[in-house]
Formats: sequence, C-alpha cells, structure tokens
Amino acid sequence: MRSHEFYMNIALEEAKKAALIGEVPIGAIVVHKGEVIARGHNMRESDQLPTAHAEHIAITEASKYIGSWRLEDCTLYVTLEPCVMCAGAIVMSRVPHVVYGAKDPKGGCCGSLMNLLEESRFNHRATVETGVLEAACSDILKGFFRELRAKKRKHKSIQEH
Amino acid sequence: MRSHEFYMNIALEEAKKAALIGEVPIGAIVVHKGEVIARGHNMRESDQLPTAHAEHIAITEASKYIGSWRLEDCTLYVTLEPCVMCAGAIVMSRVPHVVYGAKDPKGGCCGSLMNLLEESRFNHRATVETGVLEAACSDILKGFFRELRAKKRKHKSIQEH
Repeated sequence: MRSHEFYMNIALEEAKKAALIGEVPIGAIVVHKGEVIARGHNMRESDQLPTAHAEHIAITEASKYIGSWRLEDCTLYVTLEPCVMCAGAIVMSRVPHVVYGAKDPKGGCCGSLMNLLEESRFNHRATVETGVLEAACSDILKGFFRELRAKKRKHKSIQEH
Repeated sequence: MRSHEFYMNIALEEAKKAALIGEVPIGAIVVHKGEVIARGHNMRESDQLPTAHAEHIAITEASKYIGSWRLEDCTLYVTLEPCVMCAGAIVMSRVPHVVYGAKDPKGGCCGSLMNLLEESRFNHRATVETGVLEAACSDILKGFFRELRAKKRKHKSIQEH
C-alpha cells in the first residue's frame, strides 16, 4: 500500500498545473483501492465557474469513472483544506476518507472554521487526516501569492512612471 | 417587479420535471434583474453525480450565462432548503439572495441544522427568505415519497406471491 505522501505528491502535481495557468495552486485526486481514478486542479478563473475547485472537479470525475454518485471506497487527497462547498460535496458523495496538506484558517471547513466532515447531524461523516506534506502544500500557495504581489507592484510602478 | 410566488412557481415546474423521471422532486432557478437566466432540477440518480442537485445545476448554468463565477446580482429560488454542498455553492458564487419553499429538518443548512448563508466567518453572506409556496413545495415531495412507498409495497407483495 502506498503512503499518504505518495498520493499527496500527485495532488501537488495537480496544484502545479493550476499555478502554470495563473490559478491559485490547489490540487486534488481521488484514490480507489490504491488506484488514482480522478484528478483535479483549481480552474475557477479559467472556467469562470464557482464550482471549479480542485476537489470538486476530482469528485465529479471520480463519480463519472465509477458510474455512481456514491464514492464509498475512496480517499480524497487535497493540498489545501476544503472550503464549505467542497466539504459539502464530500458529504454528498459519501467519500469516507479525506487527507489534506495545508490548513486554511480563513475558509477551511474541515477543522479550521468548523468541521463539516465530522458533523453528527449529517447522514455521512468522513475521517480527516491533516498535515501530509504540509510545508510543500503551503509553500506552493505562498510562492504563488508572493509572485502575484510582485507583479502588481511592477504594474503599479510602470503606471506611475 | 414579479413576486416571490411567481418565481417559485417556475422552480416548482422544475421540481415536476424531476418527478417525471423518478428523481426526488426539487427544482431551482436563478433570477438576474427580473429575468430567469438558469433552471435546474434534481438529476442525481439519472446522472449518477453527487453534485447534480437542482440549485447546484442552476448556479452552474447561471455562471455560464453571465460568464462569471460571481453571481452578484442574482436571486436563487429553490423549492427545498439547500443542503450543505448547495449552501456552500451559494457562498462560493456570492449569490446575495436565496428564497426557498419547504424546510429540510434532516439536512437543510440554511436555517434548519445550521445556517451557512449567514455565517459571519465566511467572506460572503446571503439573505434568506423561507416559506414561499411552502405547502406546494412540501406536497410535491410528500406525494413522491408516498408513491415510492406504494410501489415498493406492491413489488414486495408480488415477490411474496
């Protein structure tokens, strides 16, 4: 059986694909019986779709692959803690295991602001593991935003001259 | 300006389309400056997609129509109180107004189990109005489940003979 780190590295590859097209670098994969059956990276700006988050895309792709809306034997790996919508998609698709890298203190709903994956009133709960390749998952985001700020400063400086 | 009832009747038409194909009858529309720009009905079983809820489909269609993930001047009408995933999609798409018909005491996340649309820690909140054509929105669901139970009894009775 492969390690969490092995799979998180594949999710990180997805995050890098997002960065290359100017999207906030977040990546996700769905693993079914050891096999990567779906991948997704953030496409919100490219697609102009509020639902085009990495894990949301991966969940949809996994359902298409399995041919069922129930992803009962799957594990979702995602580089950043899922938001409210993606936590909801995990609950609705009955993914039993979620592993994420970096925490999202501002919007994360799997432990930070709240934990929708361990909400006793829902008819589904998922186990949550955090901190897998946390530094790498966090660094790719920090690097992206640092570069974005530098670009904005350069643009402002050109405009002022 | 049209009334909430006018628009909820259109969402109910969508719910009826779901019932006709054997789906739990839930319907939704998105209204932009008075105009219906997107419609959706529950397609979860037909599509075998966990994300194929009525309001989720309507939000995606509305974004495609407007060409932006931000649905800032829109109102979402939905016959049943949104679940955790759809409440999340409302937050992520920045829909400012939500009107729903029947409450969902088991899974509703816009007032029943919790209210994710008025969560001060998120960077977006939506106003929520409830009870518009509540009886009609509730009756179509009750009728659907009554018929389903009757079918199951008939099936069981045939099997036992």
